Amino acid sequence: MLIVMKKDANEEKIQSIVTAIEKRGYTARPIPGGNRVSIGILNNKNSVDAAHFLGLNGVKEVIPVTKPYKLVSREFKQENTHVKIGDAVFGDGTMPVIAGPCAVESETQVLSIAKSVKEAGAKLFRGGAFKPRTSPYSFQGLRKKGLEHLAKVKQETGLPIVTEVMDVQNFDQVEEVADLVQIGTRNMQNFSLLRRAGKSKKPILLKRGMSAMLQEWLMAAEYIMEKGNNNIILCERGVRTFVRHSRNTLDLSVVPAVKKESHLPIIVDPSHAAGVRDQVISLSYAAAALGSDGMMIEVHNNPDEAMSDGAQSLYPDQFTKVIKTMNAIHAIILKD
Amino acid sequence: MLIVMKKDANEEKIQSIVTAIEKRGYTARPIPGGNRVSIGILNNKNSVDAAHFLGLNGVKEVIPVTKPYKLVSREFKQENTHVKIGDAVFGDGTMPVIAGPCAVESETQVLSIAKSVKEAGAKLFRGGAFKPRTSPYSFQGLRKKGLEHLAKVKQETGLPIVTEVMDVQNFDQVEEVADLVQIGTRNMQNFSLLRRAGKSKKPILLKRGMSAMLQEWLMAAEYIMEKGNNNIILCERGVRTFVRHSRNTLDLSVVPAVKKESHLPIIVDPSHAAGVRDQVISLSYAAAALGSDGMMIEVHNNPDEAMSDGAQSLYPDQFTKVIKTMNAIHAIILKD
Amino acid sequence: MLIVMKKDANEEKIQSIVTAIEKRGYTARPIPGGNRVSIGILNNKNSVDAAHFLGLNGVKEVIPVTKPYKLVSREFKQENTHVKIGDAVFGDGTMPVIAGPCAVESETQVLSIAKSVKEAGAKLFRGGAFKPRTSPYSFQGLRKKGLEHLAKVKQETGLPIVTEVMDVQNFDQVEEVADLVQIGTRNMQNFSLLRRAGKSKKPILLKRGMSAMLQEWLMAAEYIMEKGNNNIILCERGVRTFVRHSRNTLDLSVVPAVKKESHLPIIVDPSHAAGVRDQVISLSYAAAALGSDGMMIEVHNNPDEAMSDGAQSLYPDQFTKVIKTMNAIHAIILKD
Amino acid sequence: MLIVMKKDANEEKIQSIVTAIEKRGYTARPIPGGNRVSIGILNNKNSVDAAHFLGLNGVKEVIPVTKPYKLVSREFKQENTHVKIGDAVFGDGTMPVIAGPCAVESETQVLSIAKSVKEAGAKLFRGGAFKPRTSPYSFQGLRKKGLEHLAKVKQETGLPIVTEVMDVQNFDQVEEVADLVQIGTRNMQNFSLLRRAGKSKKPILLKRGMSAMLQEWLMAAEYIMEKGNNNIILCERGVRTFVRHSRNTLDLSVVPAVKKESHLPIIVDPSHAAGVRDQVISLSYAAAALGSDGMMIEVHNNPDEAMSDGAQSLYPDQFTKVIKTMNAIHAIILKD
Repeated sequence: MLIVMKKDANEEKIQSIVTAIEKRGYTARPIPGGNRVSIGILNNKNSVDAAHFLGLNGVKEVIPVTKPYKLVSREFKQENTHVKIGDAVFGDGTMPVIAGPCAVESETQVLSIAKSVKEAGAKLFRGGAFKPRTSPYSFQGLRKKGLEHLAKVKQETGLPIVTEVMDVQNFDQVEEVADLVQIGTRNMQNFSLLRRAGKSKKPILLKRGMSAMLQEWLMAAEYIMEKGNNNIILCERGVRTFVRHSRNTLDLSVVPAVKKESHLPIIVDPSHAAGVRDQVISLSYAAAALGSDGMMIEVHNNPDEAMSDGAQSLYPDQFTKVIKTMNAIHAIILKD
Repeated sequence: MLIVMKKDANEEKIQSIVTAIEKRGYTARPIPGGNRVSIGILNNKNSVDAAHFLGLNGVKEVIPVTKPYKLVSREFKQENTHVKIGDAVFGDGTMPVIAGPCAVESETQVLSIAKSVKEAGAKLFRGGAFKPRTSPYSFQGLRKKGLEHLAKVKQETGLPIVTEVMDVQNFDQVEEVADLVQIGTRNMQNFSLLRRAGKSKKPILLKRGMSAMLQEWLMAAEYIMEKGNNNIILCERGVRTFVRHSRNTLDLSVVPAVKKESHLPIIVDPSHAAGVRDQVISLSYAAAALGSDGMMIEVHNNPDEAMSDGAQSLYPDQFTKVIKTMNAIHAIILKD
Repeated sequence: MLIVMKKDANEEKIQSIVTAIEKRGYTARPIPGGNRVSIGILNNKNSVDAAHFLGLNGVKEVIPVTKPYKLVSREFKQENTHVKIGDAVFGDGTMPVIAGPCAVESETQVLSIAKSVKEAGAKLFRGGAFKPRTSPYSFQGLRKKGLEHLAKVKQETGLPIVTEVMDVQNFDQVEEVADLVQIGTRNMQNFSLLRRAGKSKKPILLKRGMSAMLQEWLMAAEYIMEKGNNNIILCERGVRTFVRHSRNTLDLSVVPAVKKESHLPIIVDPSHAAGVRDQVISLSYAAAALGSDGMMIEVHNNPDEAMSDGAQSLYPDQFTKVIKTMNAIHAIILKD
Repeated sequence: MLIVMKKDANEEKIQSIVTAIEKRGYTARPIPGGNRVSIGILNNKNSVDAAHFLGLNGVKEVIPVTKPYKLVSREFKQENTHVKIGDAVFGDGTMPVIAGPCAVESETQVLSIAKSVKEAGAKLFRGGAFKPRTSPYSFQGLRKKGLEHLAKVKQETGLPIVTEVMDVQNFDQVEEVADLVQIGTRNMQNFSLLRRAGKSKKPILLKRGMSAMLQEWLMAAEYIMEKGNNNIILCERGVRTFVRHSRNTLDLSVVPAVKKESHLPIIVDPSHAAGVRDQVISLSYAAAALGSDGMMIEVHNNPDEAMSDGAQSLYPDQFTKVIKTMNAIHAIILKD
């Protein structure tokens, strides 16, 4: 942290800032410049809150210098984290694909989709038993029954299960069935839920918040790691912008940015970003070309009748083609 | 809901959409236009999911026509909802002011601030015992101890208490002390928390999410009302935009927009939007002039030493002046 | 730090400055411009003292780079700039109101509106003769004829005229009629137009770009000042965000932020931000309470028949009431 | 256009809207719905302005149904437009690459870069002679001299030239040298410039505005086509969002969205979106995988010394590798 003083800040004002810093247990180091003084804050174990100093008399600007996160950072751990689930490894250069419907609707439905996506090459099965919905009147998921259907899918197909947990109360039962526990975009800063996830033995899929900065997202992962769970996969799923031709704007530049900042694997969910089928296909190819550590794609055996998000779900035969093309693109990138 | 067909959609395709609509229990009404046909969906009790029809053959666009929320809407209830807490009424044309520090730091601190804001004219006292923080390493609040300090403030000053609840697990204890239970911006779509709030006997202060559309915000309130709690106050606190000269962009136009759509009272929190003290003062005046149903302003007896958000907290004497000017502005608006 | 050389500084003088910079351990990079050379100073760890270079032969000015703008900055000129037009002064603590229709439609129309807004207390008349329109098929303004109608308004009512210039080619004719030349939001970074405005004898009303950062906006004003025109009024008119309940999001926090950074006056146009009449009224009051240096409000004698932006135009009697309330609010702020 | 009436709008109010529509020469068709009436507007040759009806008594909402653009739309012309420049064709399924430095700095520089990018496989050479810069003190381009250097590049290498025109005044001289005339992001709605481009015999490269909606962008192209120039290439270059880990957010979903709406070719410029080299490479691959009709990439022989945007320019050997990988990805997509 660097505190930049106003030009006219005299020695007395500078000294009062030094005192304020030292009172908080840090070391202050004044740095005389050409026509103004800056003061560095040293020996802080954790990040320093800019707000403490921003309003003080004589202070012009406060510039954060070190990163506020620690355990998730590439500086802390150089090598990529590998998250292994069943046959799949996220973060080792491969690109495992997670596929399945938005919501679990029936045992028949999930079994049918699971068999078809497994045959196409998907490594994990996704399906929501607990569904976060904007409206209280929309279908909220089959809940406990949905988890049972997912357990059946695993038993029949051997595919590991990815499903969302919406609150601490249901964590135990979700955790029992899920091989990868998803925390959704609206819960990215549900700190109680993050802490509970940190105590789980299962890997966590942490979706990016609707308008989360890179740093806030990594800090959310830091909450999980800080409690002891190192198996985290980040998932970009589009952010909210002024744009209206797609539901959200898929921010693919965040993939290389995350890889630079953090050792955690990052995958891409083009389905929720796009909201319409043809964009999903295009964006899947783009994400594969970008070096995403995995993909999560919605597939439905009967999208026109889907209970949620049908318009963005691929038909099974579309998915078969998409996964083939994605893998061909990924093979080229690997040789790069 | 209006389904717009492609220009070349023939009678057969149109009929298949009509059938799809009727299969879901709605009434379909084809509307021939200049060079294409639209199909209206009628007799739907609840909102219809656009996704069901968006991907169907021959469909060009799906346009929602009626609002998806019901209990919170002005169409449902014409008169303003009045939320009474102690002496204050939110929604009756008055403008009660909630004031206090961002975080409860000590009994001495909250008592000192509470006495000074009460004298200045504040009607409720705010202070965070449970603090949502981006970093796991930042001060997370005094928790149970903080609630005790707030209870003491109420006992000593008679001011009703506003404090945040972060999860279902702590709802009972927060509810016991709070006269107005705050749900923060990061939890606006924490649906489990909203449902729990719906069962509370205490009024709920529902802050707008960081990038929430008006409709999503009202739907979050609908979750609460749907469970039986009608005492909801909405709070605009700034949204995330590309702007960097303030922490968030205070969206004052949402105040008249909410009043048009809903019968619920809406107040403004300029402190979190601005992030810096001088903007807080200006924006407080602006919100008072706009006809806000109340204000929530951060005040700290010693902002330079505050444990969180010091830079945006007013000094007690600033607050005394601000509340006086806000009331003078509000008096003019009332005569309008 | 940027060293701006005099126009007539020859290669020898430039080289001597480069040597002087390098002697102090910095890197010098000469930057050939249109008609003069600037020399950037690079590789300075701390800020550089201007005094070292200011007196050297051939040096015109030395610009610190902490802030990239100079002439528009409050550090460069402490006192508020006063822009005087007719009876009105922008920047002296008063709040002159500019009113009129979006587009000039006929002589009868503008005369009728002008008389009514003058009586209500407006100090300047606005009306577009050249209209920037998203569609080439929309009404593009009466152009030359529109300017003639505006000239007539001035002759008959004495109100100074505010009208938009869209390109360098039409600048001369617009400048002849306008007392305040408006540069619209889509042209905020039309640098050729800004340079032409810098050579005008008329004051310039510089609207904020649709998604302009504060700094970009001030840099646009710097383009004008750099060419010699110091009479600039900035105008906030809403920015583009994810929000859909208003056309743009009026960013009122930019008003105190501009006043802190710059000596130039800043006014608010709530009409284009809101897009709907009832929001315009609320936001006008908010802007008045915020200490805006003036207001620009659309008024139409017959909004339902307006050729553009009718839905956001006030009826004349609404305007009469709005200006009265705004002035009452402003009077309170002045005493503050 | 669809006008949605308020629930309580009686027959008289509905009739008055019908009359208002017919007065403007359109046909009105009332559409009775479940609990409210809508009125369709038919037989409109050009787009209807919502503003005419939005403020009328009894009107709740106005919903545009047909697209406001015409010549650029896919409905108007089914087959892809092919824009041929030299050996390259944009829009026929190939993916020509435009490469070169941000700014022309010297003849030696452009010749050196041109030779290297030609050898790597670039089909056109880009370089700015006129540079739009946020600051009036930044390097503004070599202007006429820069155009001469570009002419030399063409003469020596045979590569067609892409360069930006900033205003109508310089259009003639830019047009003489350029084989593809670029209109930059800040000028996307400079309507005078668009009209001038519409009269040019040279193809136009129309970059997307910083925060342009898809529809506004296509309308800008409509301005050009309306004046007679059908050779337009659209270029996505990132939009402004809240994100801070990249300079702009590259909105790749706009590529399939444009292809659905319009017959015009669309290419991608990852350099300006990313702002940093490693993101440029990743995003180039993503755009190639998405089926972009071409690419525009910045390459500099000495990025560390570049006079503008050095950090985002590739080194020549990086470019050689990138173009090879992009082509391999594109070959896969073509077989798709």
